[in-house]
Amino acid sequence: MKAEIIAVGTELLLGQVVNTNATFLSEELADLGIEVYYHTVVGDNPTRLEQLLKQAQERSDLIVLCGGLGPTDDDLTKDTVAAHIQHSLVQDEQALAQLHSYFRFSKNKMTENNLRQTLMIEGGRAIQNPAGLAVGTLITEKDTTYLLLPGPPNELKPMFKQNARPLLEELFPQAEQLLSRVLRFYGIGESQLVTDLKELIDGQSNPTIAPYAKPNEVTLRLTANVTNHKKGEELLDQLEAKIMAQVGEYFYGYGDENSLVEVTVERLKQAGKTISAAESLTAGLFQSTLGDVPGVSEVFKGGFVTYSEKTKEQFLGIDPAILEEHGVVSEACAIAMAERTRELSEADIAVSFTGVAGPEELEGQPAGTVWIGLAEKGKPTIAELQHFTRDRRYIRRSAVMKGLDMIRRAVDRSK
Amino acid sequence: MKAEIIAVGTELLLGQVVNTNATFLSEELADLGIEVYYHTVVGDNPTRLEQLLKQAQERSDLIVLCGGLGPTDDDLTKDTVAAHIQHSLVQDEQALAQLHSYFRFSKNKMTENNLRQTLMIEGGRAIQNPAGLAVGTLITEKDTTYLLLPGPPNELKPMFKQNARPLLEELFPQAEQLLSRVLRFYGIGESQLVTDLKELIDGQSNPTIAPYAKPNEVTLRLTANVTNHKKGEELLDQLEAKIMAQVGEYFYGYGDENSLVEVTVERLKQAGKTISAAESLTAGLFQSTLGDVPGVSEVFKGGFVTYSEKTKEQFLGIDPAILEEHGVVSEACAIAMAERTRELSEADIAVSFTGVAGPEELEGQPAGTVWIGLAEKGKPTIAELQHFTRDRRYIRRSAVMKGLDMIRRAVDRSK
Repeated sequence: MKAEIIAVGTELLLGQVVNTNATFLSEELADLGIEVYYHTVVGDNPTRLEQLLKQAQERSDLIVLCGGLGPTDDDLTKDTVAAHIQHSLVQDEQALAQLHSYFRFSKNKMTENNLRQTLMIEGGRAIQNPAGLAVGTLITEKDTTYLLLPGPPNELKPMFKQNARPLLEELFPQAEQLLSRVLRFYGIGESQLVTDLKELIDGQSNPTIAPYAKPNEVTLRLTANVTNHKKGEELLDQLEAKIMAQVGEYFYGYGDENSLVEVTVERLKQAGKTISAAESLTAGLFQSTLGDVPGVSEVFKGGFVTYSEKTKEQFLGIDPAILEEHGVVSEACAIAMAERTRELSEADIAVSFTGVAGPEELEGQPAGTVWIGLAEKGKPTIAELQHFTRDRRYIRRSAVMKGLDMIRRAVDRSK
Repeated sequence: MKAEIIAVGTELLLGQVVNTNATFLSEELADLGIEVYYHTVVGDNPTRLEQLLKQAQERSDLIVLCGGLGPTDDDLTKDTVAAHIQHSLVQDEQALAQLHSYFRFSKNKMTENNLRQTLMIEGGRAIQNPAGLAVGTLITEKDTTYLLLPGPPNELKPMFKQNARPLLEELFPQAEQLLSRVLRFYGIGESQLVTDLKELIDGQSNPTIAPYAKPNEVTLRLTANVTNHKKGEELLDQLEAKIMAQVGEYFYGYGDENSLVEVTVERLKQAGKTISAAESLTAGLFQSTLGDVPGVSEVFKGGFVTYSEKTKEQFLGIDPAILEEHGVVSEACAIAMAERTRELSEADIAVSFTGVAGPEELEGQPAGTVWIGLAEKGKPTIAELQHFTRDRRYIRRSAVMKGLDMIRRAVDRSK
């Protein structure tokens, strides 16, 4: 089963946008046992797209096109593919209903252009868009299957995962099953993890082990190739046990779509504990990260952003003498912030973040110097010092991850 | 001058790595006045690469290849291109000296494979690598120029900028210059913007107008093709004036690398005003967005995250009777939050965010219903009702953008 991915969009050729769709789709297709042989990017030009389609049809069983399904005149993917396979375009009723619904509540007025987005290729299956207005199409013509998806990744990804992928699984069933399991690690770098697991990685055959470095964490994707599900699970269990024996202390959760914040919030819910926070350098990023988790209101009621010395005193009632003596980039400040926050919010656990986001120094301390405090009812308040790297954005995000890990471990200790 | 970029590497087709090199090179080439017509990714396969080279030679004046210059058996770009143009490979002395120097100080031992990295194509110019061991080549054969660069972006980028680019500037001198200007708009959707500017867009020639939809905003890239810079600026000024006459009320700033938060913070700095915030559904995202702007401490000292009814009363001292009578998803709540925040923080302006992030309803109101309050010293407090769409994440981010826009306009009104 040979596939190729064609991304349509002049903005890609001008270097204004990175082609992350091709990467996402390739990973998904690999998971489905479909091999991708080419990625191509072509501009908003029907002649060149048509030439490419002719070539693709000869060499590929599946052609995935992304981009060019929008409302403007540059958006020509549907027209070009339809002409290529000699089908017409028809209105998709469900997409049309979604369009009308969107404009009922939006301040923007619907235009003629928007209607074009709800057209699909006749004879194909409509691929609904849970995050936007352009409907996609899956259609097979003369032994070649075409899948049309829109350009914006936040639309393409859910469309593919929820609506296109099940259809592809039917069209291209795998005799052998690929069974994957993703292990997530915090607090260890990729090269150290790979070094610790050298024997297992060098000796891998089935399952395979693939490490992926992500911002502030590392994942391992274990993939077993088997003819039955149960056997695959067993193989994965065995390999996982060997991995945990080496690096289990850094493991925090399973799954590709998981994250440290989701695991931490889940732990808090299970333990019936609430949290609060006072943030200086992170400026609300920690609490905002909690806010992305549905249902977090069960464990989080509110907190503070104390971005200056004055607001630490004003909002939290911290004794100015502490800040005068120790400064804000200090253990004492982190402890005072965490304790006062816990008292004011009455939460079971409160964390604090104070330090140097950069790029300049603060109180003679370099960018990346961060104290994170954790106050817990009935326990001594702790504070950890970290030295994060790279730039301001990365330092703030690294601090948030560390705070989450400290909370997760604190909840586990209390069990 | 037509160019194309070929990235060689099976890891790209497996979706393990994102093709950022193509984006970087495209932007650089656009800056040199060289138009890129295709990006292609092909695996570590000499047959497919050779087929692609044949095709590329016919349609492109410049072919930039990245990847496949490493020491392993998969690395075949140099061999394949050399065979294609019927040249041999020779040792580059400077690269060889760099190789020996590296292994003098490295724990690793040099292997035969490493020597392959210092080969270049005979008759071409060596492109030295300031960050790695693989040397690149620039060579012209039969009216087609080939530029070979290694895959790792931290090697490709300095190699291109320092060593390849000057040679390309000589080979492809620009008679004409491309001059771009990006206009940024908030509060209008892409299809409405395009409809309002239909005449200008339909009639475009030089400069061209390209719209790009981004989350919660739209940008227009105006590009003029001229022989001198001053004339280009004049053409852009004229077009910009016509655009502003139509949609100027939604314009907020210039530049590809700009954003609404940066523009808003800059306005506040210029006006010497400080801000604070109380966030319910946005949970710290507004303040965290401010925190990404270096130097924001000049205008932002801190705020609150009041994620529950109780913390609105506890932290802000809001009269429980107000929340009992109107609920939290209300104008009254937004106004009370903004006013109390302004009083407690003593900032010039305070904003509040209260509403329904979703996915469930709250107080009988659907996801996306958001009240944003704005309190300003010496002025009546205002609150705007918005109906945002899509999912929880998008609703929160949309609310933040709206809050920033309200502040920006409030500062402009005070001038």
